[in-house]
Amino acid sequence: MEIRRVAVVAGGASKFGARQATYRDLISEAGKACYDSAPGLSPNDIEGFLLSTVMPERFVFQTHVAPLAAETLGVTPSKLVARVELLCASGSSAIRLAYGFIASGLADVIMVAGAEKMYTPNPAETVHHTLAAGDREWDAIHGLTAPPSFAMVAQRHMKEYGTTKEQLALVSVKNRRNGARNPIAQFRKPITVEEVYASKLVAKPLNLFDCCPITDGAAVIVLAAEHRVKDFTNEPIWIWGTGQAGGGNNAANVPGWAEWPRLRVAAKNAYQMAGVAPEDIDVAEVHDCFTISEIIEYEELGFCAKGEGGKFIEEGRSDYGGQVVVNPGGGLISRGHPFGATGIAQAIEMKQQLHGHAGDRQVPNAEIALTHNLSGFATEHTIMIYGREPK
Amino acid sequence: MEIRRVAVVAGGASKFGARQATYRDLISEAGKACYDSAPGLSPNDIEGFLLSTVMPERFVFQTHVAPLAAETLGVTPSKLVARVELLCASGSSAIRLAYGFIASGLADVIMVAGAEKMYTPNPAETVHHTLAAGDREWDAIHGLTAPPSFAMVAQRHMKEYGTTKEQLALVSVKNRRNGARNPIAQFRKPITVEEVYASKLVAKPLNLFDCCPITDGAAVIVLAAEHRVKDFTNEPIWIWGTGQAGGGNNAANVPGWAEWPRLRVAAKNAYQMAGVAPEDIDVAEVHDCFTISEIIEYEELGFCAKGEGGKFIEEGRSDYGGQVVVNPGGGLISRGHPFGATGIAQAIEMKQQLHGHAGDRQVPNAEIALTHNLSGFATEHTIMIYGREPK
Repeated sequence: MEIRRVAVVAGGASKFGARQATYRDLISEAGKACYDSAPGLSPNDIEGFLLSTVMPERFVFQTHVAPLAAETLGVTPSKLVARVELLCASGSSAIRLAYGFIASGLADVIMVAGAEKMYTPNPAETVHHTLAAGDREWDAIHGLTAPPSFAMVAQRHMKEYGTTKEQLALVSVKNRRNGARNPIAQFRKPITVEEVYASKLVAKPLNLFDCCPITDGAAVIVLAAEHRVKDFTNEPIWIWGTGQAGGGNNAANVPGWAEWPRLRVAAKNAYQMAGVAPEDIDVAEVHDCFTISEIIEYEELGFCAKGEGGKFIEEGRSDYGGQVVVNPGGGLISRGHPFGATGIAQAIEMKQQLHGHAGDRQVPNAEIALTHNLSGFATEHTIMIYGREPK
Repeated sequence: MEIRRVAVVAGGASKFGARQATYRDLISEAGKACYDSAPGLSPNDIEGFLLSTVMPERFVFQTHVAPLAAETLGVTPSKLVARVELLCASGSSAIRLAYGFIASGLADVIMVAGAEKMYTPNPAETVHHTLAAGDREWDAIHGLTAPPSFAMVAQRHMKEYGTTKEQLALVSVKNRRNGARNPIAQFRKPITVEEVYASKLVAKPLNLFDCCPITDGAAVIVLAAEHRVKDFTNEPIWIWGTGQAGGGNNAANVPGWAEWPRLRVAAKNAYQMAGVAPEDIDVAEVHDCFTISEIIEYEELGFCAKGEGGKFIEEGRSDYGGQVVVNPGGGLISRGHPFGATGIAQAIEMKQQLHGHAGDRQVPNAEIALTHNLSGFATEHTIMIYGREPK
């Protein structure tokens, strides 16, 4: 069957970082940036509203958050309102649910917001809350948070494929260099390989600068059906394809830590739907929650062969002038990672890149973009492929 | 445009109540009942998975719950996985997002599960957690939970329209009588008007038996695109229409407590899409979180004129032999109200009713069914209309 064409027509984000701002403040700041990005857009145009957010119940003691966010953004939904959660991949999960709802014909214009307030003055409190992400009865109870699990991923990948600590560090150096040019990024100071080595050891072989930070932030986009696009913008980006696959939440079910087969499934489906191959992608925002993640993503997304991710960064193939510019916005490592907002911020970066508004981090002549958002022990993967032109 | 036809092809629920069972146990129990309802259905048929749940982060200290639930149910999603939340209306919100995703052509078979673990031996703990539902900065901080807010609704409706305490009580008497015939219901003992009066005063004019209870429970259904329906069942129910509208979460924005204009919008859109009128509905499950709610729902759903809801229950028009049988499964008051599972349980009751499997609570010759699920201060409303035949 023919599927309705849908585009991202507006987008804006708050400043990401350790913010002196409430959950509601962050949403409001991102909403203003979104409305400012599309002068033709009014809250009255918006029929549906999805909020991507993970743990407001723990960090801000608030649930029923979608209506609260819609209210904050002046939106009174007449066709759709809900919150979507898939831990770190909540943002792109919300985008594709909104996409399906519009593509089906059930609505024409949906706002998708993402928000997270995670920074606390007491790091132990943040660790306590984020422990809720792992399987409480089997994994979290033993203290298995993200850093030690991705350290196992890195150890395994180093053993299997000879990936080096320097290759890991180079991901951080590239993403910090890119993020330094992104006004919303949490970290705007470039770093060196030596500084990565010198940063505190978190879980061997991952140092602090191999890890994305704890971040507060919000991001908002608007999706519209083709016949409404021109009402809002001359610079839409079009959804060409999407894929998502999950493999569970329990560490015991992770199929070999350095192999991410569910990412392969999601990517294959997205490429097939979009009618493109990995080599067609000009620019990508991928989920660099840890430096090792980005290296494995090069491989599983098909940018290079399995096991060659380390060489891919080392040879500059994911940098400006290379094969595909990965994380020009700084990725999670530099822009920061407010769980619910990350996937939305990825889409905004792609919209800016495909229309030449990325300032001194602009990728020249970018026409086809990919975003990748993961959650859990790299068990769940969500892909979006966007084009500058409709397809 | 033509929209793909979608049907509910399987469904089953756990026993609802104050359960000695974990969150995962409840999901597992409901999943077994769902698989048992459609012998042709295997976990491998399921491409997408949505979990409706509200506060696992507080009650069971667990997030990233959709992958955990999928894993528990043997499902490895290859096209969709996410959690959906809209407080008490999470269940039907998840159903309609799955509906849109299938209708668009992005997937053919999606499982929608709902689960909540809410009962604690210490009622103060449950109250503490549920306080997160209200606007923390403006409403919850003053202690505004559901019972006092719906007490204001009742007071206003009594003042405006002369609704009586007896009419409120009659809703509870009817729903307890119906629930007594429902094997999964939390309360299976009929009560009298006098017993409602004699129950503890919660918030004037609402007594304990005017309120739905705190409940643990889970419910699971499967939706399929038309060309897959026959693979799973000869007894599908077809989605004819849906509507949802929201009005915010802040008490200050509630537009006259006894008027529910957003329900009118959602209902109008659902009726229009289904091509039916209120008088065509044979059987309905509506959101009787409090007895006053059901009375206002008769009005706003168009079963009777505004202000005549009290008379509607008094004259038996929502009972067997009346105009439309409302809450044959016992509603929230008798079946119980595990937030995330309620909307799913409503769909299951409708499937049983439309195919003559509702035992001694069967509504004769029911062909068209409606479910209504609300959240917040009756600000957000979700409607589904199902038919025994495709339309």
